[in-house]
Amino acid sequence: MGNKQILVAGILDTKGEEIKFLADRVRAAGGNAVILELSVGHEVGWADISLSEVVSRAGKKKEEIFALDRNSASDLIAAGAIKLVDELRTAGKVDGVIAYGGSMGASIATRIMQSLPIGVPKIMLTTMASGDVGPYVGTRDICMMYPIAEAGLNKVTREILNNAAGAVVGMASAPAMEGVAEKPLIGCMMFGVTTPCVLRASSIMEKAGYDVMINHAVGSGGRSMEELIRDGYITGMLDITTHEIADEMLGGVLGAGPDRMTAAGELGIPQVIAPGGLDLINFGPKNTVPERLLKETDQPGRNLYEHNPTVTCIGVSMEEGYMIGEHMAEKLNAARGPSVLCVPMQGWGACDLAEPDIELGWAGPGSGPVWTADVDNPKWSRRSVQYVKALQAKIDPNKDNLEVILVDKHMNDPVFADFMAELLLEMLNGTWTKGNKSDLPYVIPF
Amino acid sequence: MGNKQILVAGILDTKGEEIKFLADRVRAAGGNAVILELSVGHEVGWADISLSEVVSRAGKKKEEIFALDRNSASDLIAAGAIKLVDELRTAGKVDGVIAYGGSMGASIATRIMQSLPIGVPKIMLTTMASGDVGPYVGTRDICMMYPIAEAGLNKVTREILNNAAGAVVGMASAPAMEGVAEKPLIGCMMFGVTTPCVLRASSIMEKAGYDVMINHAVGSGGRSMEELIRDGYITGMLDITTHEIADEMLGGVLGAGPDRMTAAGELGIPQVIAPGGLDLINFGPKNTVPERLLKETDQPGRNLYEHNPTVTCIGVSMEEGYMIGEHMAEKLNAARGPSVLCVPMQGWGACDLAEPDIELGWAGPGSGPVWTADVDNPKWSRRSVQYVKALQAKIDPNKDNLEVILVDKHMNDPVFADFMAELLLEMLNGTWTKGNKSDLPYVIPF
Repeated sequence: MGNKQILVAGILDTKGEEIKFLADRVRAAGGNAVILELSVGHEVGWADISLSEVVSRAGKKKEEIFALDRNSASDLIAAGAIKLVDELRTAGKVDGVIAYGGSMGASIATRIMQSLPIGVPKIMLTTMASGDVGPYVGTRDICMMYPIAEAGLNKVTREILNNAAGAVVGMASAPAMEGVAEKPLIGCMMFGVTTPCVLRASSIMEKAGYDVMINHAVGSGGRSMEELIRDGYITGMLDITTHEIADEMLGGVLGAGPDRMTAAGELGIPQVIAPGGLDLINFGPKNTVPERLLKETDQPGRNLYEHNPTVTCIGVSMEEGYMIGEHMAEKLNAARGPSVLCVPMQGWGACDLAEPDIELGWAGPGSGPVWTADVDNPKWSRRSVQYVKALQAKIDPNKDNLEVILVDKHMNDPVFADFMAELLLEMLNGTWTKGNKSDLPYVIPF
Repeated sequence: MGNKQILVAGILDTKGEEIKFLADRVRAAGGNAVILELSVGHEVGWADISLSEVVSRAGKKKEEIFALDRNSASDLIAAGAIKLVDELRTAGKVDGVIAYGGSMGASIATRIMQSLPIGVPKIMLTTMASGDVGPYVGTRDICMMYPIAEAGLNKVTREILNNAAGAVVGMASAPAMEGVAEKPLIGCMMFGVTTPCVLRASSIMEKAGYDVMINHAVGSGGRSMEELIRDGYITGMLDITTHEIADEMLGGVLGAGPDRMTAAGELGIPQVIAPGGLDLINFGPKNTVPERLLKETDQPGRNLYEHNPTVTCIGVSMEEGYMIGEHMAEKLNAARGPSVLCVPMQGWGACDLAEPDIELGWAGPGSGPVWTADVDNPKWSRRSVQYVKALQAKIDPNKDNLEVILVDKHMNDPVFADFMAELLLEMLNGTWTKGNKSDLPYVIPF
């Protein structure tokens, strides 16, 4: 199979010596190093792939790039490099990417890495790697490595760069997995408040012959799930924990962008959905909760719950519950494949239940911190009733692939988990039809 | 040399299948996987190194650990594992460490990794890796890798774990560097406002036959420099940029802990120091600057400077300048090796100068944003004069290894960089004596 082709990328006009050394060590480790220039100031002339070639893919000449401010220049360099690296990869010439840089170099290089499929080795060496790397990593399998020094080749940095070179060649040479039976993959979203439900439902899927990918519904998890669906990894969705939608709409910190809960619908992939965690808006430490919300904690369901010193939750109000219902109805109406939204009327997670029940996730004392009983039917959540009113007003009743099922259970009741898993299995087996669960004793007419 | 010994660590009672798979892939890549148990809930019985053995190093039995709350348990597991891994490493049985975990697993495993020397391969797989990883990485060469999924083995996670296994074996097998002449290493601290000075002084050191390690003075940089000194990497310090001390004392965000500027003194390593950047306290976006400071921006030198949307600086007040002088004098008095503090009286960085001068780092218009002229000698910074008063009151005049030199230049004047580099070279050559620069025209009597 020959030597592995490793792209060694960086801003050569300021980090040239470091990149040259890194390329040498990639070669020493048995890789074929190809130096990719991302220079923002001037072209060095010794790169394997020059900046001129990179920016030609963005329709620019190097002089045009160097005349721009650094941020605009870096955007065009990244855009050109993404195209060029995609061409190389399609031609079988990219077995891995490694880069070294400061904040600017890391910003350009990780945009290239984020554009590459999962599994292509990606290592970013940067002093930014001992801080918030969220923007650099995004939702991709990027290795961030802290080289300690900002600049300079010496016995510390040489040792670290040598290790990194060994790592990228080692990743590119990792033996193929034989004897691992690949099963079709179910996507599933989890959060603390829905854990009992998710673990039970996913274990049913596993017993039925599927693998399950459980993402953490903290923003990056939802984003990467939507990407995995679009990249063709996912056969069916158990979208139990949709609370990222509340954070996105209401200013919480765990939003996953406006496109959450759209990919499966667009691609026609079977999906069973629940309002897991939509009773909560999530913030960091208590002093980061907006003043406006703190003033409303006397309103029904608008309670504050300090989960721990770094996570503070505020209950979703009744009006917001209605708004979320409208928003989700719109996304569901656009779905092209089998889609069922299951609404557990007795509460949407461990913070949202009428009485303490350790099995359902709330030890008490008293009701869950954001629970509010419905006036007409106090066994049901008032927020859930508002949400259902919005669904009744907005869901397209004429679509045979789309159903809303109200279930007279709590989210974490085992019956609810079993119900959702069974629905998804029927969809995958082709035996599900709209309304085929209506006779079950705990199903409430929508 | 035999197969590389790779510790594969994790909380086996919740991530057992993932860790087993990771160990299999380490073996497939040619490593010798040794599974290290960090379980917090119960012992699984199949680890190569059991939790009982781990916590025995902390003087505990597993039953005692499992009876504790998870945070206390994890502290003891980490403490035991650090001792045990150190024993193994001393016996030549650790060529690399890889771990997979959630936030708890990452917290325990990276504490072990942080205890290992630079150069020992360290890879942490965790969904926490697409966020603020500062606490996990600290000041060490740890690779943080985002496995996308919170849990579950499937075609996505298997591919990523297989890559990670290849990476750790590849790092452990990275060829030794031959033909690289190791030179003695000079430590140097840099920040935007002192860049011209640092680059010039360090290039002089390089020409004189030294390697230079330039760390970014943003907290982690200063901490890791102090560690590198204590670990024996550093031959001499060009501690030009000490501003982390201001942030530590005055509530800025780039503090490096109370031990900054102590290691070289304690170990008797030659050090040339300057007050680079001590004119500024650093914060994040403008809305994160404490109200108290915003109210004082009409005071001399207390100006606000928005460097960019994510970095806001406030000038150090005259009183604070005096306090910083006292603090540094105390640390200097304790130094055991040749130590010179050079004070550039015309300003301490690119934001602190009387008139625009692009070579010194400030394009104008007007004086630097935190500049305040001394009343008696308007060419000098008033803050610097206050600082010197504190030094005059506190510096021990009887120590032959310790000198304060006032220089009638700006920090970024090439003469100042040359002066400091020459001082350090004389110290390293053994030709420096206290007072031997007093006759230079730009040296002011202290």
